[in-house]
Amino acid sequence: MESINFKDKFKLIQKAWSPKIIASMNNYHFKLAKFDGEFTWHSHQNTDEVFIVIKGEMKINFRDKSVKVKEGEMIVVPKGVEHKPVAEKECNVLLIEPEGTLNTGEEENEYTVDNLEWI
Amino acid sequence: MESINFKDKFKLIQKAWSPKIIASMNNYHFKLAKFDGEFTWHSHQNTDEVFIVIKGEMKINFRDKSVKVKEGEMIVVPKGVEHKPVAEKECNVLLIEPEGTLNTGEEENEYTVDNLEWI
Repeated sequence: MESINFKDKFKLIQKAWSPKIIASMNNYHFKLAKFDGEFTWHSHQNTDEVFIVIKGEMKINFRDKSVKVKEGEMIVVPKGVEHKPVAEKECNVLLIEPEGTLNTGEEENEYTVDNLEWI
Repeated sequence: MESINFKDKFKLIQKAWSPKIIASMNNYHFKLAKFDGEFTWHSHQNTDEVFIVIKGEMKINFRDKSVKVKEGEMIVVPKGVEHKPVAEKECNVLLIEPEGTLNTGEEENEYTVDNLEWI
């Protein structure tokens, strides 16, 4: 039972699109990731996904619209909905999703990162 | 699928210790609350609880220690662990817990708020 400082944890992350686990709550993981550039289109068939922007800004592209998410904002992407995160500049994001949720959803490709590291 | 701005939502909250729901993810609720002063000792027998400090600072008293949680920090209180949040000045907090989790845990008292409002 210790406090976890987002800024300190982000100093430990160099690579974009490579989430690291910082906490678990019940069967959920709290992960930090740096977004930079364009991610891949994907969806999660069995879970909603939460993104909280800690620093910077990004957008989530959906098939029918694009939603900007700025510092101090969050968004819930419902399960099954295709989305593609994009950050024009580096953006620091807190992700919340069930343990074992794959960053690329139902597909495995060159963006997939599994066996996530704890920091 | 819209972004949710914490600062804007906190403008809608006047009363301390009265959480409001801003989002749901699977069967979890994301709630905002203003902490000011001392809350009551309580525990949640069936769930962990996450606190993220959006603005200000607070501490969580446990029976054997006290942990300060500052702006940009989070803490996970494990299920079953007695705790008492305290804020010397108003502190804006994001809470994450399963739907229906009572703010006072296993006890109902003058601090209990149920039928939480969405904002």
